[in-house]
Amino acid sequence: MTKISFLTPGPSELYYTVPDHLKTALRDHVTEISHRGKAFQQIFAHATAQLRELMAIPDHFHIGFTSSATEIWERVIENLCETHSFHLVNGSFSKKFHEFAVQLKRQAVKYEVAPGLGFALDQLVVPAETELICLTQNETSTGVMMPLSDIYALRQQHPDKLIVVDAVSSAPYPDLDFSRIDSLFFSVQKCFGLPAGLGVWIFNDRCVAKAESMLTKGLSIGTYHTIPALVSNGQKNETPETPNMLGIYLLGKVAEDLNRRGIKAIRQETDYKAALLYATLAKQPGYEIAVQQAAHRSKTVIVANLVGQSSADFIAKCKLHGIVPGAGYGPFKNSQIRIANFPTHSREVFEKLVDLI
Amino acid sequence: MTKISFLTPGPSELYYTVPDHLKTALRDHVTEISHRGKAFQQIFAHATAQLRELMAIPDHFHIGFTSSATEIWERVIENLCETHSFHLVNGSFSKKFHEFAVQLKRQAVKYEVAPGLGFALDQLVVPAETELICLTQNETSTGVMMPLSDIYALRQQHPDKLIVVDAVSSAPYPDLDFSRIDSLFFSVQKCFGLPAGLGVWIFNDRCVAKAESMLTKGLSIGTYHTIPALVSNGQKNETPETPNMLGIYLLGKVAEDLNRRGIKAIRQETDYKAALLYATLAKQPGYEIAVQQAAHRSKTVIVANLVGQSSADFIAKCKLHGIVPGAGYGPFKNSQIRIANFPTHSREVFEKLVDLI
Repeated sequence: MTKISFLTPGPSELYYTVPDHLKTALRDHVTEISHRGKAFQQIFAHATAQLRELMAIPDHFHIGFTSSATEIWERVIENLCETHSFHLVNGSFSKKFHEFAVQLKRQAVKYEVAPGLGFALDQLVVPAETELICLTQNETSTGVMMPLSDIYALRQQHPDKLIVVDAVSSAPYPDLDFSRIDSLFFSVQKCFGLPAGLGVWIFNDRCVAKAESMLTKGLSIGTYHTIPALVSNGQKNETPETPNMLGIYLLGKVAEDLNRRGIKAIRQETDYKAALLYATLAKQPGYEIAVQQAAHRSKTVIVANLVGQSSADFIAKCKLHGIVPGAGYGPFKNSQIRIANFPTHSREVFEKLVDLI
Repeated sequence: MTKISFLTPGPSELYYTVPDHLKTALRDHVTEISHRGKAFQQIFAHATAQLRELMAIPDHFHIGFTSSATEIWERVIENLCETHSFHLVNGSFSKKFHEFAVQLKRQAVKYEVAPGLGFALDQLVVPAETELICLTQNETSTGVMMPLSDIYALRQQHPDKLIVVDAVSSAPYPDLDFSRIDSLFFSVQKCFGLPAGLGVWIFNDRCVAKAESMLTKGLSIGTYHTIPALVSNGQKNETPETPNMLGIYLLGKVAEDLNRRGIKAIRQETDYKAALLYATLAKQPGYEIAVQQAAHRSKTVIVANLVGQSSADFIAKCKLHGIVPGAGYGPFKNSQIRIANFPTHSREVFEKLVDLI
């Protein structure tokens, strides 16, 4: 196939081993076997074990598979919030997470800052009745990252509330201490370089207790993708429904590939590529780093304002050289570009991109 | 890869063209392109157009993609039932559909018959307040089929109620007149021979009106996979979330293959293979057709009671000849076998199976 480097922030370029894993999957009948049989249970166990190793997920955290991170927004609210959620909003996706809670008739309070800005924790007033704090660690629409130290500070201030982290377009990059959050989720078409159609939801026993207490009160927490259903099926290395078996298989294989490479090396390489690109954007005329504060600049989704050219112009120019960058999101579609910096994207492609800039 | 014929009722054998379509998908970057761009919109439009042709879906029916038919059970209740649903139950899957409505706190009434039996329409009392009648046209757990004439009779008796048809393991086999139902759904790992991870939900404007009226009343109908969200995104040939793009692509390609073969020929071949297998089961000692009434015997999932051997024995014997039949479901795991009769399963494989019986 023609080599094109998709630097779009999701769907993005496939991890380079995926085509081979797909061949093996066909040979081994991964899509044809029963989702209640031993062979699939091994695939499930392999995927979760590789993820635990890669992201240092503690034993008392459970791993559930859904069809997307979008679905997880819904499941988080249904399972972990009886009435009051609190949302940190600084872009289109954190905004949608808040809207989901409103659609599900929760008292959903938000602290919103302008796109491109991070959060000022000292201005944050979390109402006492809040059960659940929802934050987007990496805002794919604006390229704003929330520093882990801010997440830990929130936990220290609110030990009684559940903290759920949307790491859709950053996991497994952040070297996160799971003991300081309650749940984290992501989708596989970002940093894992996999076909879309799978979301990964990681949650601890406090989340299980919350969902079960809602059930005990006679509240509805959904049907097949509830936390109790994910846990009881997960204990058998199974899923409640017939899942995207191929997606789970590929996730396990790519997580294994990433483990072989080493998460430390992957993080270092991510840092290198991000530094290279940010340095170039800072000094080249016609480009501005969109996120003002350095501490809030995402390492995995790098956003720049364009001066004197549209994103369509820039993308067209890059495509001539086999590179597809992302346009801005929503209102910034024409005036910004978004560059994914995922494990599958090589230094060489970044060096080529920097030359084009 | 080793040729093994999976006659399991889902996941089942891949449609034989799928490996080639997967190669093309990789070459054309189907998993890497944007789900908001023209290339994906064409994939979406192609899939829905091919489905409309294959199943004679009228224009005033919409097609929405979810992650599974299990998900559609949930979305049907959330979007189409304010308080009162009615369920025809004759096996594990129709039972779960009813349970979903209970979990979602609806007044869900069921008319239940023993596994292996069809419904006696004259004994059916549908309460007047029923908004939604849920029926399972083909019960994958028991091999009981509901004749289309019974569905049409229900419509005639209850023109004011919405009728939703679970055709998970039969579509596109039934030559259904869509004007006599309101909604139908299926999953792709059955008759379409595709990797699991995609559900197809077909619904008419009455369903849209119902969901919108619930919204107007201030009720929650969910978040991203509501009927209004599926319709408004579908009009742009898009989905609310980043979907299983590969699954939608493959569905379009296989539906096109089936259209090329012709739905009439596929139905005839299905009838031939079913007749062959039922005739053999009827006359061979050690086997009994599980569904007593001929009119209620599924053409696509054929279930037999075993006498004098366990399903494990039978399956082991078949595996030696490269055939994998399905075991019974739930309580019938050991005492029954279930044979899928899907478009990908050839006459030759059925003739081989019949020889083994």
